[in-house]
Amino acid sequence: MKSDLDRLMLERQLDAIVVHGGEEFNPARYYLSNGAQITHGTIFKLRDGRGLLVCSRNEVEEAAKSGLEVKTDVELGYHVRYKEAEGDNIKATLLHWSDVFKHLGLHGGRIGLYGVWTINQTISLYRALADELPAFEFVVDEKPTLIEEAMLTKDADEIARIRSVAERTNAVMELAWERISSLRVDGDFLLDESGRRATIGDIKDLVRRELVARDLEDTGMIFAQGRDAGFPHSRGEAETPLRVGQAIVFDLFPRELGGGYHHDMTRTWCIGYAPPEVQADYDTVMEAFDIAIEAFGLNKPAHLMHEAVMDHIEKAGHATTRTAPATTEGYVHGLGHGVGIEIHEEPSITHLRRDDVLQIGNILTIEPGLYYPERGYGVRVEDMFVVDESGQLVSLSPFRKDLVIPLKCADGKTQ
Amino acid sequence: MKSDLDRLMLERQLDAIVVHGGEEFNPARYYLSNGAQITHGTIFKLRDGRGLLVCSRNEVEEAAKSGLEVKTDVELGYHVRYKEAEGDNIKATLLHWSDVFKHLGLHGGRIGLYGVWTINQTISLYRALADELPAFEFVVDEKPTLIEEAMLTKDADEIARIRSVAERTNAVMELAWERISSLRVDGDFLLDESGRRATIGDIKDLVRRELVARDLEDTGMIFAQGRDAGFPHSRGEAETPLRVGQAIVFDLFPRELGGGYHHDMTRTWCIGYAPPEVQADYDTVMEAFDIAIEAFGLNKPAHLMHEAVMDHIEKAGHATTRTAPATTEGYVHGLGHGVGIEIHEEPSITHLRRDDVLQIGNILTIEPGLYYPERGYGVRVEDMFVVDESGQLVSLSPFRKDLVIPLKCADGKTQ
Repeated sequence: MKSDLDRLMLERQLDAIVVHGGEEFNPARYYLSNGAQITHGTIFKLRDGRGLLVCSRNEVEEAAKSGLEVKTDVELGYHVRYKEAEGDNIKATLLHWSDVFKHLGLHGGRIGLYGVWTINQTISLYRALADELPAFEFVVDEKPTLIEEAMLTKDADEIARIRSVAERTNAVMELAWERISSLRVDGDFLLDESGRRATIGDIKDLVRRELVARDLEDTGMIFAQGRDAGFPHSRGEAETPLRVGQAIVFDLFPRELGGGYHHDMTRTWCIGYAPPEVQADYDTVMEAFDIAIEAFGLNKPAHLMHEAVMDHIEKAGHATTRTAPATTEGYVHGLGHGVGIEIHEEPSITHLRRDDVLQIGNILTIEPGLYYPERGYGVRVEDMFVVDESGQLVSLSPFRKDLVIPLKCADGKTQ
Repeated sequence: MKSDLDRLMLERQLDAIVVHGGEEFNPARYYLSNGAQITHGTIFKLRDGRGLLVCSRNEVEEAAKSGLEVKTDVELGYHVRYKEAEGDNIKATLLHWSDVFKHLGLHGGRIGLYGVWTINQTISLYRALADELPAFEFVVDEKPTLIEEAMLTKDADEIARIRSVAERTNAVMELAWERISSLRVDGDFLLDESGRRATIGDIKDLVRRELVARDLEDTGMIFAQGRDAGFPHSRGEAETPLRVGQAIVFDLFPRELGGGYHHDMTRTWCIGYAPPEVQADYDTVMEAFDIAIEAFGLNKPAHLMHEAVMDHIEKAGHATTRTAPATTEGYVHGLGHGVGIEIHEEPSITHLRRDDVLQIGNILTIEPGLYYPERGYGVRVEDMFVVDESGQLVSLSPFRKDLVIPLKCADGKTQ
């Protein structure tokens, strides 16, 4: 967690870290600036706790919300360096960094460099570093980086925020369920109150609206039906009408408005009834889900959970990425991942990664699935969990796991 | 525009371009994949038009919507390379790229590298390039990059989308105006129907809801009142009650849902009445706005517009970044910027950039402002424009530029 940063810097022998980037959403900057809504700005943090957020004068009030010490770039003479560099942004930036380091009393050492930026500008910066800042060694640490390692365990404040996002996400999923349940059957299709065929777009609109009403934002939900559901990340077409008896994979992973913590959960639904082969594969996935939870162990390697799940799924006769690495049918992805400011964080729960160990403060998903696009369906079930203070795996997605959404008829009879 | 890419590659002597990155929103990938909703995937484009989008099997159906030729990474043997690299992602990626180049029949040459990625991974990749792909020279082109230069002029399809975003944004601004106009005065504050004090958060909630209802998403609007408005990018606090007679800077810059084209416009409003000094500075800003439009000329340098505006504002007795580069009062920013998939694109309209020339197909903002945080106000007015086929500067933000929002009293009298 964030309070581990100084210890992690010591372990990695870093004298300072710099978090830089452009206007892109920058998880490391969000994390270290405690969620300040800035679109530019560079964070300099020394190992002894000294630090500075340098921002433009436009953003100085937003930057102050970080709780960090804030200076504007012009206060530190950026405009003078820009002139000196004759408009060369990269050179001006590095001259400016040398001024900031001097201001912080750091005259050399090992610096870790983090953030999100264009590939182009990062390379330009990296190439100029040795010339402009010869007293510093810029270190690129291995995955997981220092920041990723800190983010791997969440502190109490973060867990409280994530719980709140989870509760709101579960509530919105309930509204989607209720909405679908209230539709009227018309052959293979479903009609809304006005007699119009209900579409995937209708449900997505409802979900987006209800998320925003709860200070959450959609980040690209998946609501994919039939063959589309057979591709894990097909998002579903707005104009596609809902159909009874088709598998729908609904993967909802919103975050706090404007960037922040996520929740991530998936349900597979069949409206009205489930075809036998979907039901059979759903049962296998649910068994796999329970096996994953049983395989969880505090301080045990994460990959054991994935392997236990693959053992079961392979026994049930499906391909996995272990038996057939290039398969596009069967169980074609890992078991889960960490969640936080980024939708995919550490740990990674896959047999391909051997080093990830499950710890108190982890937030992670468990999401087995089976995919048969050519048979016209896919199935995935996903809860997000916290490894709580007592080392227990606690679901943050208590929403029901029924496959079939029963339809209430217009006349009050159940379909 | 996008159809210029082959010509621009020839001018820059690039044999191919690669657009890479992680899950971050990636404007270059969005642009070249024609808006396909993929969260991973690398685009390889040769100068003769040949190209390939390589994605994970999870996203193959979304990737197909790009209209590009699509292959999955496993089809091209990524999993074999991953094993060969013993889990070293960067090495596996570069071995995989060499396979892709071979597949495309390219065995060496100059490659431009674009996209958005973590600074850490970009540097790791860059350091490994020479070892793993010795036959290729990776070129980092100067700002504007090839992609930025293509994006600088919009084609007819892009302009049609941008016009549509603009119309919807203007409509939402109208709803915010009407909502405020319908509030009842209570001393310095404003009450809603239920007698509760209306807040900035109420207006922001309304705006977010109405944007989502129009398939747009807020990307961090500014609705800043009083002293906050004196800092150009203070966003405004949700819990702050609206007050009569205070300058409000409302800068709205949403984009198409899930990423896409933006509109960008700003109005300054005073509810009920405007204090004389706010009115005087507003008048100066509006004069500056008109002067900027007059200074526009097709194929003329953009910085001339900024200089004409600063001439006027300085004559009116205010500091500018030309007379006082480090000032935090007066006119503290540039005149405008291009807009597209990114909120800040080329051209940059500032006296600090001498090379940008205004062209047909540019989409740009004009946004003079004056800021006096210690006096408790700031003023900015911004329209977004297209330089149309005939070379005219046409506003896409026709929304009224009245400073004062008149209040309709509950009893029907005008305040």
